[in-house]
Amino acid sequence: MNVGERHYRTIWLSDDKRSVEIIDQRWLPHEFRIERIETVAGIATAIRDMWVRGAPLIGVTAAYGVAIQMQDDPSDEALDAVWETLHKTRPTAINLRWALDEMRRFLKPLAPAERAEAAYRRAAEIADEDVGLNRAIGENGLAIIKEIAARKQPGETVNILTHCNAGWLATVDYGTATAPIYLATEAGIPVHVYVDETRPRNQGAQLTAWEMAGHGVPHTLIVDNAGGHLMQHGDIDMVIVGTDRTTANGDVCNKIGTYLKALAAADNDVPFYVALPSPTIDWTVADGLKEIPIEERSGDEVSLVWGKTADGKVAQVRVSPDTTPAANPAFDVTPARLVTGLITERGVAKASREGLKAMFPERG
Amino acid sequence: MNVGERHYRTIWLSDDKRSVEIIDQRWLPHEFRIERIETVAGIATAIRDMWVRGAPLIGVTAAYGVAIQMQDDPSDEALDAVWETLHKTRPTAINLRWALDEMRRFLKPLAPAERAEAAYRRAAEIADEDVGLNRAIGENGLAIIKEIAARKQPGETVNILTHCNAGWLATVDYGTATAPIYLATEAGIPVHVYVDETRPRNQGAQLTAWEMAGHGVPHTLIVDNAGGHLMQHGDIDMVIVGTDRTTANGDVCNKIGTYLKALAAADNDVPFYVALPSPTIDWTVADGLKEIPIEERSGDEVSLVWGKTADGKVAQVRVSPDTTPAANPAFDVTPARLVTGLITERGVAKASREGLKAMFPERG
Repeated sequence: MNVGERHYRTIWLSDDKRSVEIIDQRWLPHEFRIERIETVAGIATAIRDMWVRGAPLIGVTAAYGVAIQMQDDPSDEALDAVWETLHKTRPTAINLRWALDEMRRFLKPLAPAERAEAAYRRAAEIADEDVGLNRAIGENGLAIIKEIAARKQPGETVNILTHCNAGWLATVDYGTATAPIYLATEAGIPVHVYVDETRPRNQGAQLTAWEMAGHGVPHTLIVDNAGGHLMQHGDIDMVIVGTDRTTANGDVCNKIGTYLKALAAADNDVPFYVALPSPTIDWTVADGLKEIPIEERSGDEVSLVWGKTADGKVAQVRVSPDTTPAANPAFDVTPARLVTGLITERGVAKASREGLKAMFPERG
Repeated sequence: MNVGERHYRTIWLSDDKRSVEIIDQRWLPHEFRIERIETVAGIATAIRDMWVRGAPLIGVTAAYGVAIQMQDDPSDEALDAVWETLHKTRPTAINLRWALDEMRRFLKPLAPAERAEAAYRRAAEIADEDVGLNRAIGENGLAIIKEIAARKQPGETVNILTHCNAGWLATVDYGTATAPIYLATEAGIPVHVYVDETRPRNQGAQLTAWEMAGHGVPHTLIVDNAGGHLMQHGDIDMVIVGTDRTTANGDVCNKIGTYLKALAAADNDVPFYVALPSPTIDWTVADGLKEIPIEERSGDEVSLVWGKTADGKVAQVRVSPDTTPAANPAFDVTPARLVTGLITERGVAKASREGLKAMFPERG
């Protein structure tokens, strides 16, 4: 999407057609830095140290890592080695493994001399496929926004609340939860986004707010505590969030706090949508609350807050007493009963086993 | 309550019997500073600049301000002047006005020569009355905690979630929501408190966590987003919060985000209690959602976070982009239907017009 006047993706091939350039997200929103990465080691660092983050973007970055390796050494041994090197950078990331498997599956049958060119081509395809998925999600979500706008006075703003960053920074472009918002803006529908700051890591305040500003989408930052109050007063027309994993029953695992927003939406008759590319559906899991283990992250993410000091330096401050223990469950599960619909690349599915089966008859 | 080995109130008369000493809460939790205040101007500064905060504590501080004035000049003019001076420090604080009115009502009939001694006596009484109210709330809440403990295995911990700081730092001692917790600890019931950090001002992370540590109450800091997830997994036995204003119907106005916790409690059959001294009940208001105007505070409270840097300085960092607009509604209203009970100094009332009338038949 746009950063000011210019369109960017989160990753792209450099002019030299060998290295890739990425937006180094560690410095956002305070600095907009682009890094050129020329080696597999550089790709590994960028993934491991979260210069890039977001499941789809990690996968594409890894695919380009394989391509760089094939340019240097297209042997079978090198192909296996780069799979290992990159897989261990974020071992639990589903898209990372999927992208590495896909690149190896695609390249193995080819003669080594053909692999480099094919690898760059396939990596670019994977990137474009991600954009295509998100664009399709965007179109399907746009239809919902249009329906809401049609029930309002002409020109009246559609107010959307989102939680965390399921934005273009987490993908190659468009994002998932943000894709309908960007397409609505492009379609001239007046939308305004309430951005949950999303403690503890503040992805809303740091990334979603930055994205919205860059693309010129009107938005307002709020604390995670405020959304219920806004819904009580009719200030939110719809909620759209992303998801890390959605079960075959339609239970939605997403950033901690999503469940609270879904409760408030249900209590105030505000539609609550989840945007997801179908690879995010885990067909092997039914009951999200019972079956999805929730990652418990470091309490330091709660106690320490990153930001920019008055003199422009990026620093962290400790909010609580030095010895205060903190718990930090990273995700929660929103039961399907609280979800109005799942916005997929194929259309909007009911959040239920039947709804998902009807949309993806080849699965389930 | 205790700060380490020693018992403190938030305000007390100095040894000189003229000036007062307070805990300067601006530096908590990073520094524990006690200030001696000897003049009316000092009292005004302490209230206005929030060296002391919390409605009951502000009232008591103002009462001592009147006493200091009477020591200096016990004339009618001085009495009226100190009322004006202190009232304008926090003009919307109900307890401040109540305490100033009470001091003037009590002192006006007395001869000037008798006023100083009487004023110090009445200020001390007001402080003790606050402690007595909170102690009674504590006893009534303790009965609920005992019931929960009785349904558990012997020695099993009772897990309590609280939001914001309705603690002893907001009162003279005990606090409101914290009084049952402190009494349970003293009674040897194993309690553990989940402390919501309470964005945007982090009163949970900064004050409640500090209080709990000082008095030796086991506790864990969590982000405001986490409480719903903990309730889904049976990790919370009860919620206790304070309130800024409760309506005659039992609707509860409290720090922003309280409503979301009440929704999660209802969805998971976790009892949700509100602790309040009866002066907090606004008998003139029925429907909290429609009738209570919600203070909209500066967006800077959302964008800027205070804390301690790695080198021990207290500083603030900006979390969001420089130009991001932020909205900051300070309170929300939890409808009575979500409240299990109102813990008052007289007993636990149902959160309804009938429940409050039965508990306070002289009102309503």
